[in-house]
Amino acid sequence: MVALDLGGGGARAAARCEALALPPFSDSTDGLTRTYLSPAYRAAQEQLAVWMAEAGMAVRSDAAANLIGRYEGCAAGAPALVIGSHLDSVRNAGVYDGPLGIMLGIEAVKALSSGGVRMPFAIEVYAFGDEEGSRFPAAMLTSRAVAGTLDPASLEVADRDGVRLGDLLDLAAYASAARSRGDIIAYLEAHIEQGPVLEAKGLALGTVTGIAAQLRFEIGLSGTAGHAGTTAMNLRRDAVAGMAEMVLTAEAVAAAGPSDLVATVGLVEVPSGAANVIAGRSRFTLDVRAGDAAVRDRAADAILRQFREIAGWRDLGLAMRQVHDLPASPCDPALMDLLDAATAAAGHRPYRLVSGAGHDAMIMAALCPMAMLFLRCRGGVSHNPAEHVEPADAEAALAVISGFIRRLGDHLEPA
Amino acid sequence: MVALDLGGGGARAAARCEALALPPFSDSTDGLTRTYLSPAYRAAQEQLAVWMAEAGMAVRSDAAANLIGRYEGCAAGAPALVIGSHLDSVRNAGVYDGPLGIMLGIEAVKALSSGGVRMPFAIEVYAFGDEEGSRFPAAMLTSRAVAGTLDPASLEVADRDGVRLGDLLDLAAYASAARSRGDIIAYLEAHIEQGPVLEAKGLALGTVTGIAAQLRFEIGLSGTAGHAGTTAMNLRRDAVAGMAEMVLTAEAVAAAGPSDLVATVGLVEVPSGAANVIAGRSRFTLDVRAGDAAVRDRAADAILRQFREIAGWRDLGLAMRQVHDLPASPCDPALMDLLDAATAAAGHRPYRLVSGAGHDAMIMAALCPMAMLFLRCRGGVSHNPAEHVEPADAEAALAVISGFIRRLGDHLEPA
Repeated sequence: MVALDLGGGGARAAARCEALALPPFSDSTDGLTRTYLSPAYRAAQEQLAVWMAEAGMAVRSDAAANLIGRYEGCAAGAPALVIGSHLDSVRNAGVYDGPLGIMLGIEAVKALSSGGVRMPFAIEVYAFGDEEGSRFPAAMLTSRAVAGTLDPASLEVADRDGVRLGDLLDLAAYASAARSRGDIIAYLEAHIEQGPVLEAKGLALGTVTGIAAQLRFEIGLSGTAGHAGTTAMNLRRDAVAGMAEMVLTAEAVAAAGPSDLVATVGLVEVPSGAANVIAGRSRFTLDVRAGDAAVRDRAADAILRQFREIAGWRDLGLAMRQVHDLPASPCDPALMDLLDAATAAAGHRPYRLVSGAGHDAMIMAALCPMAMLFLRCRGGVSHNPAEHVEPADAEAALAVISGFIRRLGDHLEPA
Repeated sequence: MVALDLGGGGARAAARCEALALPPFSDSTDGLTRTYLSPAYRAAQEQLAVWMAEAGMAVRSDAAANLIGRYEGCAAGAPALVIGSHLDSVRNAGVYDGPLGIMLGIEAVKALSSGGVRMPFAIEVYAFGDEEGSRFPAAMLTSRAVAGTLDPASLEVADRDGVRLGDLLDLAAYASAARSRGDIIAYLEAHIEQGPVLEAKGLALGTVTGIAAQLRFEIGLSGTAGHAGTTAMNLRRDAVAGMAEMVLTAEAVAAAGPSDLVATVGLVEVPSGAANVIAGRSRFTLDVRAGDAAVRDRAADAILRQFREIAGWRDLGLAMRQVHDLPASPCDPALMDLLDAATAAAGHRPYRLVSGAGHDAMIMAALCPMAMLFLRCRGGVSHNPAEHVEPADAEAALAVISGFIRRLGDHLEPA
C-alpha cells in the first residue's frame, strides 16, 4: 500500500469547523448555534456536500436529513466503514464538537482518493443531524434512524416555537434511513474529549473504551421554612444544609472510586429562597457515570443510601426519582486495538479512556462494531465558544484515522 | 389598684387577627397579603379605629399613615407608654405576625377603660405601616418616622408597579410623625416569636433581651463549567460542591456557638445549572446573627476565613460582599425586669431570649426605653399561612402586658 499524502488535512479539517461558525452556517450572528433542520443546518449541509464531492465522494441525504458521502471500495457496492459525527450544535457552541469528526472523515477519504487508493470496503462519511437535542426535546433521532433503533413515537416532537418535526420531514419515511447490518462493517467517530483528561496527561489523542453507563436522579428535600434570625441551629430542618451535605457525599463517593467514576450535582434550585429565610425546600439533580455499569450502580447505591441517612438525621423529607438509566456502550475490542496501533505508528502513546458523554457512536453500536478516537481540547472545555483544538492534534488524529483505515483492511483480509 | 377583668381579651385579640385575614382586609383573596397603604391596609385601619374607639381611645393617624389610639392617663396630656406593632404583612402571610401586638395593646387599654382605671401616664397603641417591607424596597419607614431617625432619601421608593410612596403620601410632611422624647416614656411590643425556642421549652411567653446584631453577605463562586460525564473528579472546579462545603461550614460554626448565634444560607442560585454540566458559577447569601455583636463578628470572621480556605484548595474564584451590618438593639433592663415580674405573677416561668428578627422595637429604641414580649407560635412558623398562636397564650400575654402596665406605674412612682 502506498503512503498517503495527508497534506495538512487535519489543520484543514479544523479550519473548516471554524469556517462553519458564522452565518449562513450559524442560526445566530452572536456565537455559533446550528440546530437540526434550521437554515444554518441546511447551509452547512450544502457546504459539506461540496467538500465531500471534492474529496471524491458521491453525496446523498437520507430521510432523516443526514448528509452522507460515499467513497467506493475496490468493488462497487461493497460494505462500508462509516466515519461520522454530528453537524448540529448546542446554543452558543464551540465549533469542533461534532463537525471535526465529519471533517476528519472527509480528509481521510480525500487522502485516499488523491492517492488513487481504494480499500476492500467502501467508506461513508455521515453528518448526523440532532445529536445535541438542542432544537427538539429528543436526541440522536438521526443516528437511531440509521441504526434501525428508532421508536416512531419519539418523532412526535415540536420545537419551542411549536414547529413539529413532522412539519419539516416526512415522518412516515424517516425510518427508511436505516442501514442493513450486512452493509456496514464498522463505525468510527473522532470527537473532542469534552474533558480535561488528555490535556492533563499531555496526550493529543485517546482510544475510547466505551461510553459510560449513566444514571440520573432528581432529588427533592422538604424541611421547615423558618426565620433565619429566630430559629436556633439545633431546631432547624434546613433543606439547603441537607442538600449541601448530600452534594459533598456524592462528590466524596465518586472521588474515592476509579478515575472514570463521576458524580455531579449540576442543577440546584431553592424555591422561594431568601436571605432571611431557612429554606423549606430544595431540589437538585444527581448524575452518576462510569465505564462499567456495576461500578456506577454500586456508587449510586452508596450515594443514595447516604442521602437517606442524611435526610433521616436532619429530619428532612426526601423524594428521589430516577430519570435516566443508560447502559454502558463498550467500544469493539478489536477496533480499539487497531486505533492503538495506528496511534503508536503515528508516533503517539496509545491511551485508553472512557467517554462520560453520550455520542452517536453509542447508537451505532446497535448496528455494527464501533470505535471512537478522542482529541484533546484545551482546558477540557466544550459547549462553549472557548472550545479549542490545536491544528497539530487534528493532524495527529487524521494520521491515526488513516492508519486505522489501512489496518482495518488488513484486519478484514488477513494475509 | 383594682383587679382588672381581662374578660377573654387575649382570645379576642387573636380572633381579631384572624378576622383581618380576608378581603377587604387582605389584598389577595388567596391567602393574607396586606401591604403598606394598599386598599386592604386602609380597610384594616378603619376596622382598627373602630376597635380602638370601643376600647376608650381617641384615634388619629399621622403623616406616615400610622394609626394611633390614645388613652389618657390621670392627667390629660401626660407622657405615654406606647404599645405597638405593625399592621402590614408579607405576601401569603400568617395572621398574627404584627397585628397580635396591636390587638393586645387595644385589649389592655380596654381592660383599663372598662374598669375606669387611669394610670399616671397615657397609653398609646401604634399600628405601624411598613415593618415587613413587602411593598416598597425599604422597611420600618413608619417607625423610623415616629422615632425621628428617618433618612428623607429613604422615602424615594416605588413599588413593583412603579407607584411611588410620594404618589400616596406627602413626603414633605412624613417626618412630622416624629414624637418628642419627653412625650414617650417607654415602648412595649408583643410579637410572635417566629422561632421554635419557646415551644421547645414548653413556655407560652418570653422576655426579649434584645434584637440580634446581624451581618449579611453575598457570596459568589466561580469555577469551570464542564461536562458532567467527561471531567474526572480530581480535575473539577465545581462551584456547587464548593458552595456545599461553605454551607456546612457556616452551619458548623454557628452550631458550635451560643444558642442565640445563628448562620443561614437561605438564597442559593446556580446560573445556567443543568443536570449534565458541572457548575461554573454559584451565588448564595450568608446571614449571621447573635445577641452580642462581638459573638456575631467572631463567628462571621471564622466562617469567612474558612470560605477563603475552601475556595483556595478547590481553586475557585471567591467574591464576598457585606450587604448589611445591623447593630444589636438591647432591651431596657428595668423594663425586662417588669416583664419578668408580670410573667411570674401571671403564673408563668420567666424566660429570656434574643430576638433574631428585626422589629419596630429596635427602631423605637432610639426614642425611648424599649421592651418586647414574645409569644410562642406553633412550630416556630411565621410568614406562612400555617402560623398559629394558641388563644390561651394570647390570654397569658394580655395578663403580662396588663401586669407590666401596672408595674410601670409603680416603677415610675415608687411608693
